[in-house]
Amino acid sequence: MPRPLKIAIAGALGRMGRQMAETIPADPRLELVARFHRPGSTGEGLDERDEALALADVVIDFTTPAASAELARACAARGGPALVIGSTGFDAAELETIAKAAEKIAVVRSGSYSLGLNMLTGLVEQAARALSADDCDIEILEAHHRLKVDAPSGTALMLGEAAARGRAVSLDDVARRARDGLTGPRPAGEIGFAVLRGGSVVGEHSVSFLSEGERLTLSHAAGDRSMFARGAIAAALWVAGQPPGEYDMRDVLGFGAQ
Amino acid sequence: MPRPLKIAIAGALGRMGRQMAETIPADPRLELVARFHRPGSTGEGLDERDEALALADVVIDFTTPAASAELARACAARGGPALVIGSTGFDAAELETIAKAAEKIAVVRSGSYSLGLNMLTGLVEQAARALSADDCDIEILEAHHRLKVDAPSGTALMLGEAAARGRAVSLDDVARRARDGLTGPRPAGEIGFAVLRGGSVVGEHSVSFLSEGERLTLSHAAGDRSMFARGAIAAALWVAGQPPGEYDMRDVLGFGAQ
Amino acid sequence: MPRPLKIAIAGALGRMGRQMAETIPADPRLELVARFHRPGSTGEGLDERDEALALADVVIDFTTPAASAELARACAARGGPALVIGSTGFDAAELETIAKAAEKIAVVRSGSYSLGLNMLTGLVEQAARALSADDCDIEILEAHHRLKVDAPSGTALMLGEAAARGRAVSLDDVARRARDGLTGPRPAGEIGFAVLRGGSVVGEHSVSFLSEGERLTLSHAAGDRSMFARGAIAAALWVAGQPPGEYDMRDVLGFGAQ
Amino acid sequence: MPRPLKIAIAGALGRMGRQMAETIPADPRLELVARFHRPGSTGEGLDERDEALALADVVIDFTTPAASAELARACAARGGPALVIGSTGFDAAELETIAKAAEKIAVVRSGSYSLGLNMLTGLVEQAARALSADDCDIEILEAHHRLKVDAPSGTALMLGEAAARGRAVSLDDVARRARDGLTGPRPAGEIGFAVLRGGSVVGEHSVSFLSEGERLTLSHAAGDRSMFARGAIAAALWVAGQPPGEYDMRDVLGFGAQ
Repeated sequence: MPRPLKIAIAGALGRMGRQMAETIPADPRLELVARFHRPGSTGEGLDERDEALALADVVIDFTTPAASAELARACAARGGPALVIGSTGFDAAELETIAKAAEKIAVVRSGSYSLGLNMLTGLVEQAARALSADDCDIEILEAHHRLKVDAPSGTALMLGEAAARGRAVSLDDVARRARDGLTGPRPAGEIGFAVLRGGSVVGEHSVSFLSEGERLTLSHAAGDRSMFARGAIAAALWVAGQPPGEYDMRDVLGFGAQ
Repeated sequence: MPRPLKIAIAGALGRMGRQMAETIPADPRLELVARFHRPGSTGEGLDERDEALALADVVIDFTTPAASAELARACAARGGPALVIGSTGFDAAELETIAKAAEKIAVVRSGSYSLGLNMLTGLVEQAARALSADDCDIEILEAHHRLKVDAPSGTALMLGEAAARGRAVSLDDVARRARDGLTGPRPAGEIGFAVLRGGSVVGEHSVSFLSEGERLTLSHAAGDRSMFARGAIAAALWVAGQPPGEYDMRDVLGFGAQ
Repeated sequence: MPRPLKIAIAGALGRMGRQMAETIPADPRLELVARFHRPGSTGEGLDERDEALALADVVIDFTTPAASAELARACAARGGPALVIGSTGFDAAELETIAKAAEKIAVVRSGSYSLGLNMLTGLVEQAARALSADDCDIEILEAHHRLKVDAPSGTALMLGEAAARGRAVSLDDVARRARDGLTGPRPAGEIGFAVLRGGSVVGEHSVSFLSEGERLTLSHAAGDRSMFARGAIAAALWVAGQPPGEYDMRDVLGFGAQ
Repeated sequence: MPRPLKIAIAGALGRMGRQMAETIPADPRLELVARFHRPGSTGEGLDERDEALALADVVIDFTTPAASAELARACAARGGPALVIGSTGFDAAELETIAKAAEKIAVVRSGSYSLGLNMLTGLVEQAARALSADDCDIEILEAHHRLKVDAPSGTALMLGEAAARGRAVSLDDVARRARDGLTGPRPAGEIGFAVLRGGSVVGEHSVSFLSEGERLTLSHAAGDRSMFARGAIAAALWVAGQPPGEYDMRDVLGFGAQ
């Protein structure tokens, strides 16, 4: 067994920073070597950022776009460590800073670190590419708790985009967002959505490929926030061995080559 | 083991009549003693109606409203056999004739002989009665083949009626037939519908009762027409021991007492 | 809208007592009027037991067998309030004390207050009674987290008992607990079990009734402990209007008459 | 729209040959130009083999190993058409003959032409490769009709092989074919199987990847034999544009590059 990977946590006092601090010590493949928050944040066993960078193989960073861009610049200037970035909402200048840093260090950046949902998205695109719209109908079902206010869910639409990409069409051209009344026969090529709401369901998505005589269904059920921590850890383990560059979860999951 | 029940088939040359003639001989609880069609139909081993009535314990009849009413009258006049009627579309006079016959003989009449769907309908009503709308959300999902032209399916709406009946509300007042866009939080008491279309799915229905922290789901998947023959047989086995009266599949399945 | 039902919590410092104290105030049908723990327990806003009994319509009690029996005696001596008991592991003398109290007050007692699982159990028995073993096969599937050490789960076996009871057979005589290798064709009447283990699944159970050409499936998925609090509340709302007697969740859910 | 692909059917009087003859004319991408059976078979509109080969772009061949090998030799000698072979049970000499023919013409050969099952197998291997055994548990569930005599199904074991291949382990080392009694906690890396039997279920398989806090499930349901005809057609459409070589359904579905 190789030595554990040395991890530092940026944004250690944030919600995901705390979740990471709970999850990492339980994993024998990892060693939590430092935690830091913003400059000047002390207490609770926090480290200075530059000390943390000197100790770590990989930094896991769920902070703000500005903080993540500055962190990427600092890591690149030192020639490491590698970065796993979970912040969202970057502007063009911040993305440019990260892209520049990724010439020197390996960076994974993703808007969602659920391994399962990223895997599902990749598999859906692949299946949609191979199973012809001529004889295979794609339908997407999602279920969420009673408090969710929009439909279909953003994730369902993202899965629809993946299916449309696999078929080289635009989702807007083929989406059937709901069915009620005299709909007529289902047109070939349509991508349909159906929505369930109730109770405390965290989030469930399934994509079905329905043909004459058979059905393939790819589905995901979310439980709790810990799934994002696990995905960030998988990204950290993967990025440690990579050459400089900017990567996303598709690369971590092995979809990158396609 | 008791002696097999003696069955005659009315409408023997119709689609369900032929299906019954295939299914009955394979069942050791039954003996197929006669088959008849309309007066004057001969050949293919058909019997005269009155000979058939003299031989049978129960007649299974998938014909037309007029033929079924006349058959009920004839059976009642003889004091038997009992009847299982699967014809649909009766007018008031025909229903009156059958009700009158049912003073002398036992008659089961149903618009659908699927045991599973009748059972599902009864269980849904019962669960809806017991699980309060204050903290339990009812959602109905259905899937059918790509050629189906209406949504939600008639069976889904029938299940919605059963749920509404269990809650002593009108389905029209609480149905949410589709969701798309900014729906807001789910109102308590709503009964939601979701629809999938594709491939060659014969028909699938599920009713979910979603609460904080748990979910109960009752579902049915149809395969082929043989399920209606099996349900008619179950009705025949049940009706043979009953006193005169008009019954439906709720009685056959033991829901009648409620 | 009627006035809210006045609830007192026994065992207020226990895990379920605290859960109840979180859940009740959010429910407009209820008013939390008192909380007490064992004699001498004070602080945290606890009340004296006898004061609590004077204020409440119903006491919800998840404590110990001895404490529950003594509480039942005290409530009966006063002529109320009604009781919802969730303690487990009673000996004969304690059960006798509760039975005696139930001559004076209404008592619901259950080993599990999940509405969904109690409902599922009742529906399974009912479906098994109506769907003949001659042409309908019963299969039970359960899934639990990776740390569960026994299989099938106790709940799966309980569902098997309900199915066997519906068919008037002994589960031991018909259970097929696992299948591997050359099993031969499935015997009619068998009740099969299948087991999945993995991840953090809290608990899922489904009972399928499989016939030629159709399938009925009744299933339950558990989320978290709050489902037991909701069931106890449903029992409290139900028991408030009942005459003296000892009841269980079958009565609360309306299965009692069968 | 390009001109339809010209198809000839070998083994035209066999079960799959007849199924192909039903399915092809309904597909506007195809033209059925010839049907032949074994030398000397005439009647029913059969053609001579060599005439058929002269007319077709692709021959679809569900016959016998010996006939398929001879057909491959004949097509190669003429420099076409391409071949889709569904015969099974080849010996080494026959495989050698086909491999030799595949130097001159494009040949797809597969033991099962279900697009859905081939897709599922490829996706399972891919997901198993990406989702670490350290924190993701693989469980395989299958359901079949009551007459099936072995468990788990051959397809379930094939899916287990795909999962094991993705993890670079041997299925024999990690398979847990059934669970009953005191099993202890689930070992990491195990691949579990569960089996349901009943009714007339044609065949259902699902592979779940269960992690802390989320679950990915990939599943397939078979309906009827027409799914094999559709898969053979997909193979024919794909192989028409390929350079000489021997291919399988993984290539048709785009998994070949991995």
